[in-house]
Amino acid sequence: MSIGDDCALLRLRTGEELAVTTDLSIAGRHFQLEWHSPEAIGHRTLARGLSDLAAMGARPVAAFLSLGLPPQIVGRWLNRFLDGFFALADANKTPLAGGDLAESPAAVADIVLIGAVHRSRALLRSGARPGDLLYVTGQLGGASAGLAQLKKLAEGRHKRASKSKPVRELRIPPDLEDTLQPHLSPQPRLAQGQYLARHSLATAAIDLSDGLSTDLAHLCNESGVAAELDAAALPIHSAANLAQALHGGEDYELLFTAPPSARIPRNIAGVPVTRIGRMVRARADRPQIMLVTQSRSRPLESRGWEHFS
Amino acid sequence: MSIGDDCALLRLRTGEELAVTTDLSIAGRHFQLEWHSPEAIGHRTLARGLSDLAAMGARPVAAFLSLGLPPQIVGRWLNRFLDGFFALADANKTPLAGGDLAESPAAVADIVLIGAVHRSRALLRSGARPGDLLYVTGQLGGASAGLAQLKKLAEGRHKRASKSKPVRELRIPPDLEDTLQPHLSPQPRLAQGQYLARHSLATAAIDLSDGLSTDLAHLCNESGVAAELDAAALPIHSAANLAQALHGGEDYELLFTAPPSARIPRNIAGVPVTRIGRMVRARADRPQIMLVTQSRSRPLESRGWEHFS
Repeated sequence: MSIGDDCALLRLRTGEELAVTTDLSIAGRHFQLEWHSPEAIGHRTLARGLSDLAAMGARPVAAFLSLGLPPQIVGRWLNRFLDGFFALADANKTPLAGGDLAESPAAVADIVLIGAVHRSRALLRSGARPGDLLYVTGQLGGASAGLAQLKKLAEGRHKRASKSKPVRELRIPPDLEDTLQPHLSPQPRLAQGQYLARHSLATAAIDLSDGLSTDLAHLCNESGVAAELDAAALPIHSAANLAQALHGGEDYELLFTAPPSARIPRNIAGVPVTRIGRMVRARADRPQIMLVTQSRSRPLESRGWEHFS
Repeated sequence: MSIGDDCALLRLRTGEELAVTTDLSIAGRHFQLEWHSPEAIGHRTLARGLSDLAAMGARPVAAFLSLGLPPQIVGRWLNRFLDGFFALADANKTPLAGGDLAESPAAVADIVLIGAVHRSRALLRSGARPGDLLYVTGQLGGASAGLAQLKKLAEGRHKRASKSKPVRELRIPPDLEDTLQPHLSPQPRLAQGQYLARHSLATAAIDLSDGLSTDLAHLCNESGVAAELDAAALPIHSAANLAQALHGGEDYELLFTAPPSARIPRNIAGVPVTRIGRMVRARADRPQIMLVTQSRSRPLESRGWEHFS
């Protein structure tokens, strides 16, 4: 801790338990100093942590931010990083309660989120049962499609760049802003997660950080079930293709399951909710996830998501 | 989070509040891969965080560890780091509840400690009053003296090293183990902090991470008071000199204040407690901290502590 006491003191409300998550972001792996504005890196750093709270149905109580930065970017870069960070923090009523700043040869940001959730109401990955229906918030593949566009922009500039000049910030053309937005400023689904927890609607939930195919496999593993995805039902982002919707990471939407009897609204706090499949019994003789189309079914492999590396 | 759910769920006991601290350790600044064994780096990473809990009088509830490591040291180095980490965690009943591991060009470790303390019993930096007496646990300057010895060892090897061979782990001669111990494996004073909080004995407390002269200034600033240190009373470590005791960092002892009426034991849970001065009214016309000897008094400047840089 850099200010005041050695620890931050926080209180929960009666009947709440703590939800804690940490996410480490590293230059070259989770963000690129040459591609991303400082504001976008600040926003994305916090969004990763808030999305974990959303997946548990927790409300944010406080954030802690540890930054290791090369000395040459501590000044104006840091201020702009914090602008992006605090814009998202304020929008989600998340106070920054402490942290640490040190010089580091590589830029790193570790975000810690402390959340609170009513006891035994937290959304877990392990509660899905055969027969449950599978839902997702928002749209799929937008972040991955945006990243692909950003890569193109960066590579185009790289080809044009003179070797004698330092790399300047990547300028985003106005006509690409909408396409890049899901990648540059993803919105954690806190209100949606809290709604599901408060009304005990979901049997299991996870946030889509590694991509639908990978995160659905996590949920299936933790719950000991299998899943069938309806290809035609997937809410694919207008800029994305099917592969990006299935395997692209960092959409930070919520994937959750609920019994057929649960009344799941078509949208929660302004974000659409779409039924995209169902959970089935896990069997040794069939793949864990099947992608079902009108004509045929095929197994869906988890491809993982590797950011930039 | 790498395993299980998106967040770790933790419960406090009735009447407790949360104490949270984060500390970022970076290779070259807080530790040296060429000087420190992986076990020592693991121990020291956790000790920094536990000592912050000790300073608040909190009990550890859980630790979260985010590691960014160069790929070449992820295997055996990481296992040995965790050996050092878990030895101290187990000794202090601190479960590792989550964290993150990623490749990073520079080795970084961010430690998060979640603690709990009875409401309104937490030790703060801000409660010291003129007339309070000043105490410290254990001995002073040992970590700084140990670091000086370690530097000598490392520099001696550096001179002898052949440039064609990779740097190997620094071997600690058996006759130096005792001297290096306060630097390599400092002991956070959790039992002592909890004792002070439980019995409401201390008016203010801080842990000695930056050195007595700097941390006492923090405590004076937060409390709005000044201090007089009795030079003759300082429990200087047998390997250390006065300057190391006054300015050396990372002893991780507790510095605390209590009214003269408080009955402070001479030792708490096996660790000696020494009265080293008193708090006085802050006045614009005199230095914040005076070092008092039999013959004279002189102002004591805060020198800070810069680890390795």
